[in-house]
Amino acid sequence: MTQLGPQAEATRRRILDAAIGLLAEQSFDVVSLRAIARQAKVDPSLVVHYFGSKEGLFRAIVEAQLRPAEVLAPLASVPVDELGERLVRTVDALWSSPEGRGMLAVVRRMLSSGTDVLPDAVTEQVLGRVLPLVPGDNEAERWLRLSLVASQMSGMLLTRHVLGLEPLASLTSDELADAMGPTFQRYLTGDVGGAS
Amino acid sequence: MTQLGPQAEATRRRILDAAIGLLAEQSFDVVSLRAIARQAKVDPSLVVHYFGSKEGLFRAIVEAQLRPAEVLAPLASVPVDELGERLVRTVDALWSSPEGRGMLAVVRRMLSSGTDVLPDAVTEQVLGRVLPLVPGDNEAERWLRLSLVASQMSGMLLTRHVLGLEPLASLTSDELADAMGPTFQRYLTGDVGGAS
Repeated sequence: MTQLGPQAEATRRRILDAAIGLLAEQSFDVVSLRAIARQAKVDPSLVVHYFGSKEGLFRAIVEAQLRPAEVLAPLASVPVDELGERLVRTVDALWSSPEGRGMLAVVRRMLSSGTDVLPDAVTEQVLGRVLPLVPGDNEAERWLRLSLVASQMSGMLLTRHVLGLEPLASLTSDELADAMGPTFQRYLTGDVGGAS
Repeated sequence: MTQLGPQAEATRRRILDAAIGLLAEQSFDVVSLRAIARQAKVDPSLVVHYFGSKEGLFRAIVEAQLRPAEVLAPLASVPVDELGERLVRTVDALWSSPEGRGMLAVVRRMLSSGTDVLPDAVTEQVLGRVLPLVPGDNEAERWLRLSLVASQMSGMLLTRHVLGLEPLASLTSDELADAMGPTFQRYLTGDVGGAS
Protein backbone atom coordinates (compact mmCIF):
# COMPACT_ATOMS: atom_id res chain seq x y z
CA MET A 1 0.00 0.00 0.00
CA THR A 2 1.33 3.45 -0.86
CA GLN A 3 1.64 5.95 1.97
CA LEU A 4 -1.39 8.22 2.26
CA GLY A 5 -1.53 11.71 3.73
CA PRO A 6 -3.34 12.10 7.09
CA GLN A 7 -6.59 13.32 5.52
CA ALA A 8 -6.67 10.57 2.88
CA GLU A 9 -5.83 8.02 5.56
CA ALA A 10 -8.74 9.29 7.70
CA THR A 11 -11.13 9.02 4.74
CA ARG A 12 -9.90 5.53 3.94
CA ARG A 13 -10.39 4.51 7.58
CA ARG A 14 -13.89 6.00 7.61
CA ILE A 15 -14.82 3.91 4.58
CA LEU A 16 -13.40 0.78 6.23
CA ASP A 17 -15.33 1.40 9.45
CA ALA A 18 -18.54 1.98 7.49
CA ALA A 19 -17.98 -1.27 5.57
CA ILE A 20 -17.29 -3.23 8.77
CA GLY A 21 -20.49 -1.89 10.30
CA LEU A 22 -22.59 -2.81 7.27
CA LEU A 23 -20.97 -6.22 6.70
CA ALA A 24 -21.63 -7.17 10.32
CA GLU A 25 -25.34 -6.58 9.72
CA GLN A 26 -25.95 -7.64 6.14
CA SER A 27 -24.80 -10.33 3.75
CA PHE A 28 -21.73 -9.53 1.63
CA ASP A 29 -23.80 -10.02 -1.53
CA VAL A 30 -26.33 -7.42 -0.46
CA VAL A 31 -24.01 -4.62 0.70
CA SER A 32 -23.17 -2.27 -2.21
CA LEU A 33 -20.21 0.08 -2.61
CA ARG A 34 -22.81 2.83 -2.90
CA ALA A 35 -24.32 1.93 0.49
CA ILE A 36 -20.86 1.88 2.07
CA ALA A 37 -20.09 5.29 0.57
CA ARG A 38 -23.39 6.65 1.89
CA GLN A 39 -22.65 5.32 5.36
CA ALA A 40 -19.13 6.79 5.29
CA LYS A 41 -20.49 10.07 3.88
CA VAL A 42 -18.10 10.03 0.91
CA ASP A 43 -18.59 9.95 -2.85
CA PRO A 44 -18.83 6.36 -4.21
CA SER A 45 -15.94 7.14 -6.59
CA LEU A 46 -13.65 7.47 -3.56
CA VAL A 47 -14.48 3.91 -2.46
CA VAL A 48 -13.48 2.67 -5.91
CA HIS A 49 -10.39 4.89 -5.85
CA TYR A 50 -9.09 3.44 -2.57
CA PHE A 51 -10.22 -0.17 -2.82
CA GLY A 52 -11.05 -0.96 -6.45
CA SER A 53 -13.91 -3.36 -5.72
CA LYS A 54 -15.94 -4.92 -2.93
CA GLU A 55 -13.46 -7.80 -2.86
CA GLY A 56 -10.58 -5.34 -2.57
CA LEU A 57 -12.43 -3.61 0.24
CA PHE A 58 -12.90 -6.88 2.08
CA ARG A 59 -9.21 -7.71 1.77
CA ALA A 60 -8.43 -4.27 3.18
CA ILE A 61 -10.74 -5.01 6.13
CA VAL A 62 -8.92 -8.27 6.86
CA GLU A 63 -5.63 -6.38 6.58
CA ALA A 64 -6.72 -3.50 8.82
CA GLN A 65 -8.45 -5.58 11.50
CA LEU A 66 -6.28 -8.69 11.64
CA ARG A 67 -2.97 -7.09 10.57
CA PRO A 68 -1.53 -10.52 9.68
CA ALA A 69 1.90 -9.18 8.71
CA GLU A 70 2.33 -7.17 11.91
CA VAL A 71 0.90 -9.86 14.17
CA LEU A 72 2.82 -12.76 12.71
CA ALA A 73 6.17 -11.07 12.07
CA PRO A 74 7.52 -11.70 15.62
CA LEU A 75 6.93 -15.45 15.14
CA ALA A 76 9.75 -15.53 12.59
CA SER A 77 12.29 -15.20 15.42
CA VAL A 78 10.65 -17.76 17.74
CA PRO A 79 12.57 -21.05 18.23
CA VAL A 80 10.84 -23.67 16.09
CA ASP A 81 9.97 -25.88 19.07
CA GLU A 82 8.08 -23.01 20.76
CA LEU A 83 6.13 -22.06 17.66
CA GLY A 84 2.94 -23.94 18.61
CA GLU A 85 2.55 -22.28 21.98
CA ARG A 86 3.48 -18.83 20.72
CA LEU A 87 1.08 -19.11 17.81
CA VAL A 88 -1.92 -19.91 19.99
CA ARG A 89 -1.06 -17.08 22.40
CA THR A 90 -0.60 -14.55 19.60
CA VAL A 91 -3.80 -15.38 17.75
CA ASP A 92 -5.88 -15.68 20.90
CA ALA A 93 -4.74 -12.21 22.02
CA LEU A 94 -5.72 -10.83 18.62
CA TRP A 95 -9.26 -12.25 18.76
CA SER A 96 -9.67 -10.96 22.31
CA SER A 97 -8.76 -7.40 21.25
CA PRO A 98 -11.37 -4.78 20.24
CA GLU A 99 -10.28 -5.11 16.57
CA GLY A 100 -10.67 -8.87 16.73
CA ARG A 101 -14.11 -8.64 18.30
CA GLY A 102 -15.21 -6.16 15.61
CA MET A 103 -14.05 -8.65 13.01
CA LEU A 104 -15.98 -11.56 14.55
CA ALA A 105 -19.34 -10.14 13.51
CA VAL A 106 -18.11 -9.79 9.93
CA VAL A 107 -16.74 -13.34 9.91
CA ARG A 108 -20.01 -14.77 11.23
CA ARG A 109 -21.92 -12.96 8.54
CA MET A 110 -19.50 -14.10 5.81
CA LEU A 111 -19.79 -17.72 6.89
CA SER A 112 -23.48 -17.67 6.16
CA SER A 113 -23.27 -16.09 2.73
CA GLY A 114 -22.60 -18.15 -0.35
CA THR A 115 -19.55 -16.19 -1.47
CA ASP A 116 -16.00 -17.49 -1.71
CA VAL A 117 -14.51 -14.19 -0.65
CA LEU A 118 -13.83 -15.29 2.91
CA PRO A 119 -11.78 -18.40 2.08
CA ASP A 120 -9.95 -16.55 -0.72
CA ALA A 121 -9.07 -13.60 1.47
CA VAL A 122 -7.99 -15.91 4.28
CA THR A 123 -5.96 -18.09 1.96
CA GLU A 124 -4.22 -15.23 0.23
CA GLN A 125 -3.57 -12.90 3.09
CA VAL A 126 -3.35 -14.90 6.24
CA LEU A 127 -2.26 -18.39 5.19
CA GLY A 128 0.00 -17.07 2.42
CA ARG A 129 1.88 -14.95 4.98
CA VAL A 130 2.26 -17.80 7.44
CA LEU A 131 3.42 -20.32 4.84
CA PRO A 132 7.08 -19.19 4.85
CA LEU A 133 7.14 -19.67 8.66
CA VAL A 134 5.96 -23.29 8.36
CA PRO A 135 8.67 -25.94 8.41
CA GLY A 136 8.59 -28.51 5.62
CA ASP A 137 10.65 -30.10 2.85
CA ASN A 138 8.36 -28.92 0.11
CA GLU A 139 5.39 -26.72 -0.67
CA ALA A 140 2.88 -29.61 -0.43
CA GLU A 141 4.01 -30.53 3.07
CA ARG A 142 3.90 -26.88 4.16
CA TRP A 143 0.34 -26.50 2.91
CA LEU A 144 -0.77 -29.70 4.66
CA ARG A 145 0.69 -28.47 7.96
CA LEU A 146 -0.80 -25.05 7.47
CA SER A 147 -4.31 -26.32 6.67
CA LEU A 148 -4.18 -28.47 9.83
CA VAL A 149 -3.15 -25.39 11.82
CA ALA A 150 -6.05 -23.50 10.23
CA SER A 151 -8.49 -26.25 11.22
CA GLN A 152 -7.60 -26.02 14.93
CA MET A 153 -7.30 -22.24 14.82
CA SER A 154 -10.72 -21.73 13.22
CA GLY A 155 -12.23 -24.22 15.67
CA MET A 156 -10.68 -22.35 18.59
CA LEU A 157 -12.10 -19.12 17.21
CA LEU A 158 -15.54 -20.65 16.77
CA THR A 159 -15.86 -22.45 20.12
CA ARG A 160 -13.96 -20.04 22.40
CA HIS A 161 -14.72 -16.66 20.81
CA VAL A 162 -17.94 -17.03 18.80
CA LEU A 163 -20.00 -19.67 20.61
CA GLY A 164 -18.45 -19.17 24.06
CA LEU A 165 -18.32 -22.91 24.78
CA GLU A 166 -17.31 -23.58 28.38
CA PRO A 167 -14.91 -24.23 29.96
CA LEU A 168 -12.86 -23.41 26.85
CA ALA A 169 -14.18 -19.85 26.67
CA SER A 170 -12.98 -19.07 30.22
CA LEU A 171 -9.51 -20.60 30.08
CA THR A 172 -6.69 -18.15 30.73
CA SER A 173 -4.18 -17.56 27.99
CA ASP A 174 -1.70 -19.84 29.86
CA GLU A 175 -4.24 -22.64 30.19
CA LEU A 176 -5.15 -22.34 26.52
CA ALA A 177 -1.47 -22.48 25.54
CA ASP A 178 -0.98 -25.62 27.69
CA ALA A 179 -4.03 -27.28 26.19
CA MET A 180 -3.65 -26.39 22.51
CA GLY A 181 0.03 -25.49 22.12
CA PRO A 182 1.09 -29.14 21.59
CA THR A 183 -1.56 -29.54 18.86
CA PHE A 184 -0.18 -26.62 16.88
CA GLN A 185 3.37 -27.75 17.55
CA ARG A 186 2.68 -31.21 16.15
CA TYR A 187 0.87 -29.81 13.10
CA LEU A 188 3.84 -27.50 12.47
CA THR A 189 6.79 -29.79 13.14
CA GLY A 190 5.59 -33.29 14.08
CA ASP A 191 4.59 -36.38 12.16
CA VAL A 192 1.25 -35.62 10.51
CA GLY A 193 0.97 -38.87 8.63
CA GLY A 194 1.53 -40.40 5.22
CA ALA A 195 0.38 -37.37 3.29
CA SER A 196 3.39 -35.29 4.34
CA MET B 1 -39.39 -40.17 21.65
CA THR B 2 -42.53 -42.29 21.63
CA GLN B 3 -43.02 -44.67 18.73
CA LEU B 4 -45.19 -43.21 15.96
CA GLY B 5 -47.30 -45.08 13.41
CA PRO B 6 -46.04 -45.04 9.79
CA GLN B 7 -48.35 -42.22 8.72
CA ALA B 8 -47.54 -40.02 11.70
CA GLU B 9 -43.85 -40.75 11.18
CA ALA B 10 -44.14 -39.68 7.52
CA THR B 11 -45.86 -36.44 8.54
CA ARG B 12 -43.25 -35.75 11.17
CA ARG B 13 -40.50 -36.36 8.62
CA ARG B 14 -42.19 -34.05 6.09
CA ILE B 15 -42.24 -31.26 8.68
CA LEU B 16 -38.57 -31.84 9.47
CA ASP B 17 -37.60 -31.75 5.78
CA ALA B 18 -39.59 -28.54 5.26
CA ALA B 19 -37.87 -26.97 8.27
CA ILE B 20 -34.41 -28.01 7.07
CA GLY B 21 -35.13 -26.49 3.67
CA LEU B 22 -36.32 -23.19 5.13
CA LEU B 23 -33.60 -22.95 7.79
CA ALA B 24 -30.92 -23.44 5.14
CA GLU B 25 -32.23 -20.37 3.33
CA GLN B 26 -33.40 -18.04 6.08
CA SER B 27 -32.33 -16.99 9.53
CA PHE B 28 -33.72 -19.01 12.45
CA ASP B 29 -35.31 -15.86 13.86
CA VAL B 30 -37.25 -15.23 10.66
CA VAL B 31 -38.60 -18.71 9.95
CA SER B 32 -41.99 -19.22 11.63
CA LEU B 33 -43.73 -22.44 12.60
CA ARG B 34 -46.54 -21.27 10.31
CA ALA B 35 -44.15 -20.99 7.33
CA ILE B 36 -42.79 -24.45 8.06
CA ALA B 37 -46.33 -25.86 8.24
CA ARG B 38 -47.20 -24.20 4.93
CA GLN B 39 -44.08 -25.64 3.28
CA ALA B 40 -44.85 -29.11 4.66
CA LYS B 41 -48.52 -28.75 3.66
CA VAL B 42 -49.76 -29.55 7.16
CA ASP B 43 -51.83 -27.65 9.70
CA PRO B 44 -49.65 -25.48 12.02
CA SER B 45 -51.18 -27.25 15.03
CA LEU B 46 -49.47 -30.46 13.89
CA VAL B 47 -46.06 -28.80 14.05
CA VAL B 48 -46.77 -27.77 17.63
CA HIS B 49 -48.14 -31.24 18.38
CA TYR B 50 -44.97 -33.01 17.25
CA PHE B 51 -42.27 -30.51 18.26
CA GLY B 52 -43.73 -28.08 20.80
CA SER B 53 -41.75 -25.05 19.66
CA LYS B 54 -39.21 -23.84 17.12
CA GLU B 55 -36.44 -24.76 19.56
CA GLY B 56 -37.91 -28.24 19.91
CA LEU B 57 -38.08 -28.52 16.16
CA PHE B 58 -34.44 -27.53 15.83
CA ARG B 59 -33.40 -30.13 18.40
CA ALA B 60 -35.36 -32.71 16.42
CA ILE B 61 -33.46 -31.69 13.28
CA VAL B 62 -30.12 -32.16 15.01
CA GLU B 63 -31.36 -35.52 16.26
CA ALA B 64 -32.67 -36.65 12.87
CA GLN B 65 -29.74 -35.46 10.77
CA LEU B 66 -26.79 -36.07 13.06
CA ARG B 67 -28.21 -39.04 14.99
CA PRO B 68 -25.68 -38.51 17.80
CA ALA B 69 -26.83 -41.49 19.85
CA GLU B 70 -26.69 -43.92 16.93
CA VAL B 71 -23.43 -42.54 15.55
CA LEU B 72 -21.58 -42.38 18.83
CA ALA B 73 -22.85 -45.58 20.46
CA PRO B 74 -20.20 -47.84 18.82
CA LEU B 75 -17.45 -45.66 20.33
CA ALA B 76 -18.38 -46.95 23.79
CA SER B 77 -16.75 -50.30 22.95
CA VAL B 78 -13.59 -48.85 21.36
CA PRO B 79 -10.36 -49.29 23.37
CA VAL B 80 -9.59 -45.97 25.03
CA ASP B 81 -6.26 -45.55 23.21
CA GLU B 82 -7.97 -45.80 19.81
CA LEU B 83 -10.73 -43.34 20.66
CA GLY B 84 -9.12 -40.33 18.95
CA GLU B 85 -8.70 -42.01 15.60
CA ARG B 86 -12.12 -43.67 15.67
CA LEU B 87 -13.81 -40.42 16.63
CA VAL B 88 -12.37 -38.48 13.70
CA ARG B 89 -13.28 -41.29 11.26
CA THR B 90 -16.82 -41.56 12.58
CA VAL B 91 -17.61 -37.86 12.54
CA ASP B 92 -15.93 -37.26 9.19
CA ALA B 93 -18.02 -40.04 7.61
CA LEU B 94 -21.14 -38.44 9.03
CA TRP B 95 -20.41 -34.99 7.58
CA SER B 96 -19.58 -36.57 4.21
CA SER B 97 -22.96 -38.32 4.08
CA PRO B 98 -26.05 -36.82 2.38
CA GLU B 99 -27.62 -36.15 5.81
CA GLY B 100 -24.46 -34.38 6.96
CA ARG B 101 -24.31 -32.24 3.85
CA GLY B 102 -27.97 -31.28 4.26
CA MET B 103 -27.17 -30.21 7.81
CA LEU B 104 -24.20 -28.05 6.77
CA ALA B 105 -26.42 -25.43 5.16
CA VAL B 106 -28.48 -25.17 8.33
CA VAL B 107 -25.36 -24.89 10.50
CA ARG B 108 -23.91 -22.12 8.31
CA ARG B 109 -27.15 -20.21 8.57
CA MET B 110 -27.34 -20.69 12.35
CA LEU B 111 -23.80 -19.43 12.83
CA SER B 112 -24.75 -16.10 11.36
CA SER B 113 -27.90 -15.55 13.40
CA GLY B 114 -27.77 -14.07 16.85
CA THR B 115 -29.59 -16.93 18.54
CA ASP B 116 -28.15 -19.24 21.16
CA VAL B 117 -30.09 -22.23 19.86
CA LEU B 118 -27.13 -23.76 18.04
CA PRO B 119 -24.75 -23.87 21.01
CA ASP B 120 -27.53 -25.00 23.33
CA ALA B 121 -28.64 -27.78 21.00
CA VAL B 122 -25.05 -28.86 20.45
CA THR B 123 -24.24 -28.74 24.14
CA GLU B 124 -27.31 -30.65 25.22
CA GLN B 125 -27.59 -33.23 22.51
CA VAL B 126 -24.19 -33.85 21.08
CA LEU B 127 -21.73 -32.96 23.83
CA GLY B 128 -24.01 -34.26 26.59
CA ARG B 129 -24.10 -37.66 24.88
CA VAL B 130 -20.36 -37.81 24.40
CA LEU B 131 -19.55 -36.76 27.95
CA PRO B 132 -19.97 -40.24 29.49
CA LEU B 133 -17.46 -41.58 26.91
CA VAL B 134 -14.82 -39.04 27.91
CA PRO B 135 -12.22 -40.23 30.42
CA GLY B 136 -11.63 -38.03 33.45
CA ASP B 137 -11.52 -38.03 37.24
CA ASN B 138 -14.31 -35.52 37.56
CA GLU B 139 -16.98 -33.63 35.67
CA ALA B 140 -14.81 -30.50 35.25
CA GLU B 141 -11.99 -32.45 33.65
CA ARG B 142 -14.43 -34.24 31.32
CA TRP B 143 -15.94 -30.95 30.16
CA LEU B 144 -12.49 -29.45 29.53
CA ARG B 145 -11.49 -32.45 27.41
CA LEU B 146 -14.79 -32.40 25.59
CA SER B 147 -14.66 -28.69 24.78
CA LEU B 148 -11.15 -29.17 23.35
CA VAL B 149 -12.47 -32.05 21.23
CA ALA B 150 -15.30 -29.79 20.08
CA SER B 151 -12.84 -27.05 19.10
CA GLN B 152 -10.88 -29.33 16.76
CA MET B 153 -14.02 -31.06 15.51
CA SER B 154 -15.79 -27.81 14.63
CA GLY B 155 -12.61 -26.52 12.96
CA MET B 156 -12.36 -29.71 10.92
CA LEU B 157 -15.98 -29.28 9.89
CA LEU B 158 -15.43 -25.65 8.94
CA THR B 159 -12.16 -26.00 7.00
CA ARG B 160 -12.66 -29.43 5.39
CA HIS B 161 -16.41 -29.52 4.82
CA VAL B 162 -17.66 -25.91 4.69
CA LEU B 163 -14.76 -23.87 3.28
CA GLY B 164 -13.09 -26.71 1.37
CA LEU B 165 -9.60 -25.60 2.39
CA GLU B 166 -6.94 -27.62 0.56
CA PRO B 167 -5.19 -29.95 0.95
CA LEU B 168 -7.28 -30.74 4.05
CA ALA B 169 -10.50 -31.02 2.05
CA SER B 170 -9.06 -33.71 -0.24
CA LEU B 171 -7.39 -35.91 2.38
CA THR B 172 -8.65 -39.49 2.46
CA SER B 173 -10.28 -40.73 5.62
CA ASP B 174 -7.02 -42.58 6.49
CA GLU B 175 -4.88 -39.50 5.96
CA LEU B 176 -7.25 -37.43 8.07
CA ALA B 177 -7.16 -40.02 10.86
CA ASP B 178 -3.33 -40.01 10.77
CA ALA B 179 -3.20 -36.23 10.88
CA MET B 180 -5.89 -35.45 13.46
CA GLY B 181 -6.32 -38.70 15.40
CA PRO B 182 -3.46 -37.89 17.81
CA THR B 183 -4.98 -34.47 18.53
CA PHE B 184 -8.29 -35.99 19.61
CA GLN B 185 -6.49 -38.75 21.49
CA ARG B 186 -4.49 -36.23 23.51
CA TYR B 187 -7.57 -34.09 24.22
CA LEU B 188 -9.41 -37.23 25.40
CA THR B 189 -6.72 -39.02 27.41
CA GLY B 190 -3.49 -36.98 27.44
CA ASP B 191 -2.12 -34.15 29.55
CA VAL B 192 -4.12 -31.06 28.66
CA GLY B 193 -2.53 -28.76 31.18
CA GLY B 194 -3.03 -27.30 34.60
CA ALA B 195 -6.74 -26.75 34.18
CA SER B 196 -7.45 -30.49 34.21
